[in-house]
Amino acid sequence: MAYEYRIVRQVEFSETDMAGIMHFSNYFRYMEAAEHAFFRSLGFSICTTDPEPVGWPRVHAECDFRYPLRFEDTVEVRLLVKEKRERSIIYLFIFRKLNEQPEREVARGMMAVACTKHDAGTGRLVAVPIPAAIAAKIEPAPPELLCP
Amino acid sequence: MAYEYRIVRQVEFSETDMAGIMHFSNYFRYMEAAEHAFFRSLGFSICTTDPEPVGWPRVHAECDFRYPLRFEDTVEVRLLVKEKRERSIIYLFIFRKLNEQPEREVARGMMAVACTKHDAGTGRLVAVPIPAAIAAKIEPAPPELLCP
Amino acid sequence: MAYEYRIVRQVEFSETDMAGIMHFSNYFRYMEAAEHAFFRSLGFSICTTDPEPVGWPRVHAECDFRYPLRFEDTVEVRLLVKEKRERSIIYLFIFRKLNEQPEREVARGMMAVACTKHDAGTGRLVAVPIPAAIAAKIEPAPPELLCP
Amino acid sequence: MAYEYRIVRQVEFSETDMAGIMHFSNYFRYMEAAEHAFFRSLGFSICTTDPEPVGWPRVHAECDFRYPLRFEDTVEVRLLVKEKRERSIIYLFIFRKLNEQPEREVARGMMAVACTKHDAGTGRLVAVPIPAAIAAKIEPAPPELLCP
Repeated sequence: MAYEYRIVRQVEFSETDMAGIMHFSNYFRYMEAAEHAFFRSLGFSICTTDPEPVGWPRVHAECDFRYPLRFEDTVEVRLLVKEKRERSIIYLFIFRKLNEQPEREVARGMMAVACTKHDAGTGRLVAVPIPAAIAAKIEPAPPELLCP
Repeated sequence: MAYEYRIVRQVEFSETDMAGIMHFSNYFRYMEAAEHAFFRSLGFSICTTDPEPVGWPRVHAECDFRYPLRFEDTVEVRLLVKEKRERSIIYLFIFRKLNEQPEREVARGMMAVACTKHDAGTGRLVAVPIPAAIAAKIEPAPPELLCP
Repeated sequence: MAYEYRIVRQVEFSETDMAGIMHFSNYFRYMEAAEHAFFRSLGFSICTTDPEPVGWPRVHAECDFRYPLRFEDTVEVRLLVKEKRERSIIYLFIFRKLNEQPEREVARGMMAVACTKHDAGTGRLVAVPIPAAIAAKIEPAPPELLCP
Repeated sequence: MAYEYRIVRQVEFSETDMAGIMHFSNYFRYMEAAEHAFFRSLGFSICTTDPEPVGWPRVHAECDFRYPLRFEDTVEVRLLVKEKRERSIIYLFIFRKLNEQPEREVARGMMAVACTKHDAGTGRLVAVPIPAAIAAKIEPAPPELLCP
């Protein structure tokens, strides 16, 4: 059972904007990258058909930006499972800039994703229970880790 | 005095992902594009030094995703001023897919931006009052427009 | 029979980088946008299954960058059909900055795309002749338009 | 003296498109990432003011796409210095997909970058000789490495 995962990224030139900082839309790409690496760490791919062909569309995403990130900054994105529901997962993401002492939290985000399948009849995505093999490996993080 | 603006976009191939829908990070790019077009509609540029050199970093951004957008879908992004504070503005964004009857709301986002200057002493960004010329042209939207 | 198409774009904040100019990778996104708008102008979608389910993967892309584009610059991307072959098309793209007098060419690109189908046996993409309905509407541009 | 550098990337979900493959514009972002990592490997940053404040705008970029990359594919981007001129460098990039046997070359690109400074008088970028400290560490690759 896992409730957290960390990835480290170095801000790329193409991720900066003319204000000289990482464009805010990229924080959301980083969150998703952490989610997908978390799944790989559990032995799954987010795009797997094994054990079942499910998809994980985003239902909600948000981020608070506290301190800018610049080109070549090293940032840890720490994923924490905030809630595990029958058909969805809510993740918390804590961004820490590592190449400066003291290290500091620079952003904090959240993402809610639904477990879905294509309904053969209507062609629409419908929320379905998280496959048992996946659900068995994920648990919510201890509440004290989720506080600022 | 203005409190809203609408832009229309057509989803591009490079904005889609392997799930066949617009990648969620692009909704945030669309919100920002609407904000910048709103400023142009008032006679300003978001990157102006006139009347004063201020910047507008994002403090918070969020989005609820209700229905996917696909390649070549036509989407209206309607910006509404939710709050105008002394040193910040909160925007609401309503995404409507136009190429389907009945039209439907597909996403709803929010963005809080701070009005900032570079402090010559510390080199840091500090929040400053919105320049009078800009503040004079922006007002909060009527509350009834902000409800779902 | 058509051999050219023009789109006009305004450079967005998210397309700039810390050098204060449009990131070079976005010129390739603009070229593709012009290609897809060209297809729409002919009554097709690049992602159509009508008249036949074909795809158009890029085989080659290149761009010469002569003069930078900045935030809110207005740029015309002019597509010209350089060559129409049995199973591929080569496009030329001329970028002109419109918000400055005299207007000037700021970049020039090229893209070769192959017409492909999924081979049911191998699951691979294989090059196929351009569907007749599409080929009937596209012709190469006069050579004098293709010179610098 | 160095003439090559290798980075390894794993294709991200946000880099794919609705065709299920990595969008071609991202190959150019990967090339640039390899260039910047090459500079770091030499003890420089591409955005340094030390030893001198120079910039490296792209003058030309191109890529041949031979085989698609998909989500979670592992790809090596190998940079080779093709030419070192007084005021510019030409790089070759070879993309190899590592998570498949036999490994195969999937794309090959090229990028020409100019060494520039801001001219104080005109405000324009002008090409200048590569700073000696940087030039002293870079040499062209042996010709046999540059052939297909």
